[in-house]
Amino acid sequence: MLQKIIDIIHRGRTFLVTAHERLDGDALGSELALYAMLTDLRKQAVVYNQDEIPGNYRFLPGSESIVSALPPPETFDAAFILDCSELDRVGREAPRIAGIRQLVNIDHHVSNGGFCDTVLLDPKASSTGEILCRVMTAMNWAPTPPAATCLYTAILTDTGGFHYGNTTPEALMAASGLVVRGADPQWISENVYESNPLAKIRLLGAVLGTLALDGDDRVGSLTVTREVLARTGAAPEHTDGLVDLPRTIRGVDVSVLFSEMEDSRIKVSLRSKGRVNVERVARAFGGGGHVNAAACRVEGDVDMVKRKVIAAVVSSLEAEGRR
Amino acid sequence: MLQKIIDIIHRGRTFLVTAHERLDGDALGSELALYAMLTDLRKQAVVYNQDEIPGNYRFLPGSESIVSALPPPETFDAAFILDCSELDRVGREAPRIAGIRQLVNIDHHVSNGGFCDTVLLDPKASSTGEILCRVMTAMNWAPTPPAATCLYTAILTDTGGFHYGNTTPEALMAASGLVVRGADPQWISENVYESNPLAKIRLLGAVLGTLALDGDDRVGSLTVTREVLARTGAAPEHTDGLVDLPRTIRGVDVSVLFSEMEDSRIKVSLRSKGRVNVERVARAFGGGGHVNAAACRVEGDVDMVKRKVIAAVVSSLEAEGRR
Repeated sequence: MLQKIIDIIHRGRTFLVTAHERLDGDALGSELALYAMLTDLRKQAVVYNQDEIPGNYRFLPGSESIVSALPPPETFDAAFILDCSELDRVGREAPRIAGIRQLVNIDHHVSNGGFCDTVLLDPKASSTGEILCRVMTAMNWAPTPPAATCLYTAILTDTGGFHYGNTTPEALMAASGLVVRGADPQWISENVYESNPLAKIRLLGAVLGTLALDGDDRVGSLTVTREVLARTGAAPEHTDGLVDLPRTIRGVDVSVLFSEMEDSRIKVSLRSKGRVNVERVARAFGGGGHVNAAACRVEGDVDMVKRKVIAAVVSSLEAEGRR
Repeated sequence: MLQKIIDIIHRGRTFLVTAHERLDGDALGSELALYAMLTDLRKQAVVYNQDEIPGNYRFLPGSESIVSALPPPETFDAAFILDCSELDRVGREAPRIAGIRQLVNIDHHVSNGGFCDTVLLDPKASSTGEILCRVMTAMNWAPTPPAATCLYTAILTDTGGFHYGNTTPEALMAASGLVVRGADPQWISENVYESNPLAKIRLLGAVLGTLALDGDDRVGSLTVTREVLARTGAAPEHTDGLVDLPRTIRGVDVSVLFSEMEDSRIKVSLRSKGRVNVERVARAFGGGGHVNAAACRVEGDVDMVKRKVIAAVVSSLEAEGRR
């Protein structure tokens, strides 16, 4: 499959590069690294994303050239759909992108069902960026400093700063090689993790006051009301990452974040340490996710939802203890 | 020098292993990795530290065998002084340790003046743990999983979670090799970074309310009073890391933490991004440190000290801007 993709690159002249909506560091880093390579190989490439680039990724070299209007699909020889387990993940332009002559999917999601013929999938890879490193090695193309910066960002962010279980020897080795090629770990980390909007930090301070511990202090939760968003000037996306905080307390195995939504529902985000399963709890409330990270949306006022969900988490922990 | 150290290990039978007071992940990880190797080589080894092990490092394999009373110095063939730029850094037992037959210093601090004959110093190494990896490779000793866990912790923590400028290709490569040998990045990170005492998180919430921005929002500061420590049940060491917070705000180049001390002084910690120099400011108030991290202790009440130090930081930024 790798050779087929290399052939597609060598034969084609004009490429679309895209990734999933709700952009993250792996989606953007992979897109822009591939863009850097294609451009260096004197190909025409366009990076298209439905959504705007989050502020902390605007430092990525090439990000200024990303377009938010899809050019006519017939102008492309092939489209690279990166970090997507399904074509729909690219957003509302999926049907038009589906019409491009040749689709190439490069991805690392275990749930990938194979939506096109040409798919390079490795669920063991830390990130799509790591798979792209292999493509470049196989093509004998050494990443330029901009490409190395983008690929390092992809691996860094998808491993949660080399923190999650996907921090494999291969991920660290690839990161090492990218630093050799010009990626600057300090500068990249400062840009990704140290460019919070002020409102986000104010929100953090306000929300920490809602910290509650339940279930013999094994369950920590925080609550974001619409009132606190208004008071701190924060937007709903500024709640990203807050759910990780209670879990940083010694003895807390499950973190829960309750956020009042625009409608009458409460968004419930769950995180756990080690082998504690929160996916089961989210599923019981109509949501889903993974063992260590899951979410659901629950109808009701915030106090009632908190009582119900916390009770479910506590009895899930008790059931695991009995096993 | 490497060969001389290997000879000392092979010839000796009984070793002391120690590191600097105010233990950190590199000091402890390096000590316990060396301890694991010496034990595996059927040597007798004792790890001595003046200070207690911080709670978040008690997961390190072997930590339960560390002693806080120095055995008679004459019982040791050699002493390994790890991660110390001067012998005094080991604490009050430095004079007795100085009497041990053979001293071996393994360190990565640029300020190391060479306090004994046998010194393996590499200021380019991310950590003493990284240097120890090389010693083990040279000895043809493959780290056991406990040793790999300790060495990974050393590299992880001294690079600030692969975040600081010392995140070199070599540091990432060594980390990769340690994962191959059994270090579990997720489990280690959870233990090191996600085992905060509850009081520390309560303190964080309370202190975020004191966030102030000055100098066109390029200087962010937080203040810890004795009153807030009492109210949240936090200890002075729980302020560790708070100084990094204002720097995570977009546009903030300098972070300052003001902490009321037991005496009539204020402890001032300074951090900066990129090339902004805070060492100069700390020095002006009788303190010191590095370009990106410095500290000083200033006599006076907290409001007055804040005014003075913030003014000095702002004019230092203005002076840099003119350069």
